[in-house]
Amino acid sequence: MNLQRIADKLGITLKKLESLQENIIRRSSWPEPRLQRFEKATSGIEAGTAIFDNGDIVYGYPKIRRALMLKAAIKRYFSDRIAVEEKMNGYNVRVASIDGEVVALTRGGFVCPYSTEVASRLIPEVVFNDHPELVLCGEMVGPENPYVSKDIYPTDSIDFYIFDLSRKNWKGTLGVHKTHEFAEEHGLRATPMLGEFRTDRAYDEIVGIVERLGKKGHEGIVMKDPENKAMPVKYTCSESNCSDLEVAFRYYNDYALDFFVSRAVREGFQSAEWNESDEERRARALRIGESILLPLVDTVKKKMSGEQIVQQVQIRVKNIQTARDFEYHLRRSGMKAIFDQPEPNDEGGYLVRITKLVMSTNDKTQALIEGEMW
Amino acid sequence: MNLQRIADKLGITLKKLESLQENIIRRSSWPEPRLQRFEKATSGIEAGTAIFDNGDIVYGYPKIRRALMLKAAIKRYFSDRIAVEEKMNGYNVRVASIDGEVVALTRGGFVCPYSTEVASRLIPEVVFNDHPELVLCGEMVGPENPYVSKDIYPTDSIDFYIFDLSRKNWKGTLGVHKTHEFAEEHGLRATPMLGEFRTDRAYDEIVGIVERLGKKGHEGIVMKDPENKAMPVKYTCSESNCSDLEVAFRYYNDYALDFFVSRAVREGFQSAEWNESDEERRARALRIGESILLPLVDTVKKKMSGEQIVQQVQIRVKNIQTARDFEYHLRRSGMKAIFDQPEPNDEGGYLVRITKLVMSTNDKTQALIEGEMW
Repeated sequence: MNLQRIADKLGITLKKLESLQENIIRRSSWPEPRLQRFEKATSGIEAGTAIFDNGDIVYGYPKIRRALMLKAAIKRYFSDRIAVEEKMNGYNVRVASIDGEVVALTRGGFVCPYSTEVASRLIPEVVFNDHPELVLCGEMVGPENPYVSKDIYPTDSIDFYIFDLSRKNWKGTLGVHKTHEFAEEHGLRATPMLGEFRTDRAYDEIVGIVERLGKKGHEGIVMKDPENKAMPVKYTCSESNCSDLEVAFRYYNDYALDFFVSRAVREGFQSAEWNESDEERRARALRIGESILLPLVDTVKKKMSGEQIVQQVQIRVKNIQTARDFEYHLRRSGMKAIFDQPEPNDEGGYLVRITKLVMSTNDKTQALIEGEMW
Repeated sequence: MNLQRIADKLGITLKKLESLQENIIRRSSWPEPRLQRFEKATSGIEAGTAIFDNGDIVYGYPKIRRALMLKAAIKRYFSDRIAVEEKMNGYNVRVASIDGEVVALTRGGFVCPYSTEVASRLIPEVVFNDHPELVLCGEMVGPENPYVSKDIYPTDSIDFYIFDLSRKNWKGTLGVHKTHEFAEEHGLRATPMLGEFRTDRAYDEIVGIVERLGKKGHEGIVMKDPENKAMPVKYTCSESNCSDLEVAFRYYNDYALDFFVSRAVREGFQSAEWNESDEERRARALRIGESILLPLVDTVKKKMSGEQIVQQVQIRVKNIQTARDFEYHLRRSGMKAIFDQPEPNDEGGYLVRITKLVMSTNDKTQALIEGEMW
């Protein structure tokens, strides 16, 4: 790898690149292709940016910031018009072709073996043959998403929805219209486009959309400038905030503390901005309270009856090696998981059941029900 | 100060004491009497332990641990009998006489000027005249408690309830019976004794007590070994957990994140252990949800209508200098507060209104309602 060339591409000095390699940039030699990834954002380069050994750079997708007050955020961040897309609830990957091989990168810039297999299956070969420089930024969703398993999307396994396009060695993105056009032309799924509105009328429309999405159990929306001249802004449904709380309190000792509080605070702002009636607010309070209390009670009772506190997920793979690689990938991500023996299925692939251990919640709950103090 | 003598009293070597003075022990020269305080617990010495310049040591009161599962904790930590006292909701002080002057120490081992004036007023002189070695461990409660203002106790100002006795230069405590006897003999208030039970029957009794206390808005209980042979254990009412949540979410950006989650988790364990009906659980969920949502909405709406987010408290002092000293004391504790001009009152003292600033919540809420991202 020619370091000077990489530094030039990144727009930093060679010296800076060398100093980053000591602190911020980490090597990842498995699975192939080998790369160096930015563990943190720095010098205008997003976290998760990957520099492959062949010199290709795939930049991290910019973090989408969140509005707590919808109307004020619309006014502050957008000019004439706003395009509203669904924010899908899964995990983010960037898919690119490196030396002719499809590679799916996680947010952190690791090659994920499972996502790579899924992406290779779902993205027609012609896409990267015709556009070898392309980076597809999208969301992996569905019940066989091993990170965030949701059965609200039209798949019984896992599916890939693109929400933006970029190119290797380029920091920019092509934005909402080009992405949807490209998806349509190439038979790819894209996150649903829910409408485009004049900024001064968008608030009421968007509240309606968010309420409808919430009732269906979907996560929320991303607002984008149709001209791709402003940063996108996300906003979530109450039901999604509560469903986050539900998961977090079920595994209360394994989640970061700000995860809990941020969801509750979002609810407060939404309720205040939406000027709810006493009855609506009461319903929201009950929803919040139940999202906290019921999973906690469930966890405690499970443990009292001797059950282990675990998360069950499953994936389907074509290649049995993908499952083995994914097991290693989860482990290096700091997750403890037990993989069952792969079960061959009718489609010529394998179903793999995975038990994710939530050791901290498991042990803490055990200690507490034995009367230990907190 | 003879360091070797102090080290001997503390039961550590001179060398150890000197090394602690570099890291753990901090000098506090104001207000008089001067002292050195343990900022953290170490070598079996509680945080908040104060070594006065005259050589007197007042040990920190041991932290009372909390049960999340009541029945299991009773079984695990107590032998034959359990004495149940109310856990009052205020702030902890230790009051001692140093060179003939009454001094009230905060948990951290600072001399609090306001608490010192209150203690001097409420504790008959004869107490320390007859028992100069005594340390009264108790709770300052009432509406003019500037930290935790509560109007559920029979005082319109502030009152002092002792919950244990100790002695200078001695780590032990005298325990529940001696404390109540002493209080009665000397006309001091003590935290209410709610009963003494056989351990095997205590659970149901205590659940009843906790429910009754909760309905009155009181905090909870402390379980003690009547023989003072086991560490006390505390347990709180649902209403108190929720009222904590209420305060914390009102000032959501000024509270530590674990404050929120710990209260919610307590509710989960209580609900699970108490085997609630669906209806009871629903009521608890609503209570939790409302404790989170309503204060948040209130804070957001206040800010939207241009109000500052502040906490109003008041104190009454006999000596105007106490108010000035207390202002300085709050500031050194890291609290930002604006003191109004003291208003002379009928009792020959002064009423001082204090506005505690919650800058972080104030500024964050302002930014968020202007559409800033989070």
